[in-house]
Amino acid sequence: MIKKAIILLSGGLDSTTCAAIAKEKNFELYGLTINYGQKHSFELESAKSIANYFNMKKHTIIDINLAKFGGSSLTSKNLKIPKNRTISNINEIPTTYVPARNTVFLSIALARAETLKSFDIFIGVNALDYSGYPDCRSEFISQFEKLANLATKESIEKKGKYKIHTPLINLTKSEIIQEGLKLNVDYSKTSSCYDPKNSGNPCGNCDACILRLKGFKEAGKKDPLHYI
Amino acid sequence: MIKKAIILLSGGLDSTTCAAIAKEKNFELYGLTINYGQKHSFELESAKSIANYFNMKKHTIIDINLAKFGGSSLTSKNLKIPKNRTISNINEIPTTYVPARNTVFLSIALARAETLKSFDIFIGVNALDYSGYPDCRSEFISQFEKLANLATKESIEKKGKYKIHTPLINLTKSEIIQEGLKLNVDYSKTSSCYDPKNSGNPCGNCDACILRLKGFKEAGKKDPLHYI
Repeated sequence: MIKKAIILLSGGLDSTTCAAIAKEKNFELYGLTINYGQKHSFELESAKSIANYFNMKKHTIIDINLAKFGGSSLTSKNLKIPKNRTISNINEIPTTYVPARNTVFLSIALARAETLKSFDIFIGVNALDYSGYPDCRSEFISQFEKLANLATKESIEKKGKYKIHTPLINLTKSEIIQEGLKLNVDYSKTSSCYDPKNSGNPCGNCDACILRLKGFKEAGKKDPLHYI
Repeated sequence: MIKKAIILLSGGLDSTTCAAIAKEKNFELYGLTINYGQKHSFELESAKSIANYFNMKKHTIIDINLAKFGGSSLTSKNLKIPKNRTISNINEIPTTYVPARNTVFLSIALARAETLKSFDIFIGVNALDYSGYPDCRSEFISQFEKLANLATKESIEKKGKYKIHTPLINLTKSEIIQEGLKLNVDYSKTSSCYDPKNSGNPCGNCDACILRLKGFKEAGKKDPLHYI
């Protein structure tokens, strides 16, 4: 029997690689993209194109305007996205942290999973080459898994046990890219930059770009995106 | 120092009583109402009126269309809301269960709390006179509390510890009503019915109405709403 999986798909490098891994494991893919009020919408377009590339069974976009709460430079016009941070201080939690974002994303994915009678959720969190976000750590993920198994009708009626898959959590960015390339991921379709230009081209000096460029460099590969 | 609290406010009897209790405890109230794609919007109007009645510091309505996923008679036009269920079978989980709803609601409340630097979230869940929803039980709530304390920047930087307040969890509906009346709650402003008529009047025979009417009866009080 084909097993369904929910793929949290931002349109970035990590979630796209995560989708490729789920496909390789023979899951039927249900993409889920959350339009959470981020300042730019290039990643939504990337997500659609990636869902299409992987021939996902369905791709759903859910709107929830977390910008109403503010508190992050990814959603609030009053906060600037930090640039040119050095690798040594990149593990301090920067203003690009969006309060409780992965808790919100996983809870929506859980709702989606329950309605599809799926017990598998993939999220491309990474706790090595990352910005120190608390909701990317494995302690957080295993706690969410416990919650999911108490939260739903499907779980208390013992129809199954939820698994939050985090295949990238202990990989370096370079290892993620190498894994993706092995699985034929087309990284030209992905969008990682926190602050792309109007053309959609990445800035090259936000945390997301710095980590991505470092990853490609260490993997000995060329990033197919055009930086300006 | 005045402490801020997030009040998940549906506009129903329980969340309104919960708000009254938080006010009595001298919290500054920040109402949060989730417009989740329910078929009718009377409860949103009730929530606004209640936020006003309690003179809340702020009341925020967040839209998230869980109806896109279906799976509940509260959101899906294809599923009928059950009527005239007897008290004896009212603890079977009915189709009014919305997949992962309280996980989604609490995660949004957590995002709200973090941006306000509040650590107190009130939710009017009740595990006695209820429909057997898994995400109304205390096991679920304490698990969410653990998650919240791992999930956020505020918590890992030890700025505080999140508390999910559930003052109604072990009360009967009658006790909830008596507590609310003691605190001057105006129940004529609340809306509990799952299937109100176009006028907004409650139907009187869905689970929510049955439990409410039973509660008022046992409390020896008259429900101020007009049933049709």
